[in-house]
Amino acid sequence: MATQKIAAAPSVRRLPLYLQMVRQAQREGIQYISGTFIAHELNLKPIQVRKDLSITPITGKPKKGYPVGSLIRAIEHFLGWDTTRKAVLVGAGNLGTALLGYQNLRDHGLLMVAAFDNNPEKIGSQIHQVPVFSVETLESNILMWGVKDAILTVPSHAAQAVTEILIKGGIEGIWNFTHVKLKVPDSMVIQKEDLSSGYAMFCVRMQARQIGTDLPSSLVPEA
Amino acid sequence: MATQKIAAAPSVRRLPLYLQMVRQAQREGIQYISGTFIAHELNLKPIQVRKDLSITPITGKPKKGYPVGSLIRAIEHFLGWDTTRKAVLVGAGNLGTALLGYQNLRDHGLLMVAAFDNNPEKIGSQIHQVPVFSVETLESNILMWGVKDAILTVPSHAAQAVTEILIKGGIEGIWNFTHVKLKVPDSMVIQKEDLSSGYAMFCVRMQARQIGTDLPSSLVPEA
Repeated sequence: MATQKIAAAPSVRRLPLYLQMVRQAQREGIQYISGTFIAHELNLKPIQVRKDLSITPITGKPKKGYPVGSLIRAIEHFLGWDTTRKAVLVGAGNLGTALLGYQNLRDHGLLMVAAFDNNPEKIGSQIHQVPVFSVETLESNILMWGVKDAILTVPSHAAQAVTEILIKGGIEGIWNFTHVKLKVPDSMVIQKEDLSSGYAMFCVRMQARQIGTDLPSSLVPEA
Repeated sequence: MATQKIAAAPSVRRLPLYLQMVRQAQREGIQYISGTFIAHELNLKPIQVRKDLSITPITGKPKKGYPVGSLIRAIEHFLGWDTTRKAVLVGAGNLGTALLGYQNLRDHGLLMVAAFDNNPEKIGSQIHQVPVFSVETLESNILMWGVKDAILTVPSHAAQAVTEILIKGGIEGIWNFTHVKLKVPDSMVIQKEDLSSGYAMFCVRMQARQIGTDLPSSLVPEA
């Protein structure tokens, strides 16, 4: 890891898209794949694809392209998706329940070891095979398990209070699905997930469609 | 609209972040806000902020900055969030239910007029005040209502079949939460929402934290 470049956010965000596409190519028996082909399939510019993939150690062969198997392993290794990350999820409401069953995350090495909620009807049950515990046992359990990652799907009004517990329990990173800007020590990683960003893209693209504006290719690849 | 620039995706994606922050400033009685201040609050570079905001017609005043009220209106207007968009949601499972109750989307002008599902226990009920109808009535209802936007939260195996119905019903844009690359006419807007992108960011930032790498500012602003 130490010698890898730290990539800019848009490139990192596109890596899962490449991974999905290259895995599909592998299933179809393809052994080499060119940056130009990937770019065409994903409506990106070839130079963008080559720049994005250059954040991994993979290099393509002239005229042949990237070896598919090595490319998959390089992306997975860069993202750390070739190992398992243990995480707890706090807030087993509708969004939390959806995430607990989200197969893609499991495929990417995310192991949700437990969910926490304050609803007595949920505590003691399992959601998508993940056991649900009382929030009252959150700090002691994550300390005991040594879990470092947390997914936060509580109502916004509870977000900071739960975060204080997560900090005491030794959590180092929070994937934050609430609307709250969490107050945490500088050493913690907070990755905020905001559906408003995707909705903003949807709205701008719909407006462009209605006025018949040509979209630059940077807006197209999310299709 | 016709004279507005079509912005690159990363800038559009950041606009909701600015909007949230500037609205907060307005609530605190602030009348002018500088690009430098916004940049500091959001851990972005000032030049990035000015570039992002330049996709709206707003201009800042030397030494004072952007007028807060006008900046809010400019962002909202650019995103079309100053008008109402009617949409239907198909697939009232956990994720669909979470979206139906997502207040942020309502605040951004998204009016979910109906949900559709094939579960008899849900049909005829209301979820977060939105009525649930049978998928069998999807085509006729959206034709009748003239709704052009759809949010797709069905299981992946049903995604393409439901999309065919949406096409027949005159839908022009789909906010796609499934893992499926939908086959649609070129004229349709498909905005794919992929949690894997956010998870990729989380993983890379956690790895960088563990090896003590300094993150470039492009990775920080999502905190």
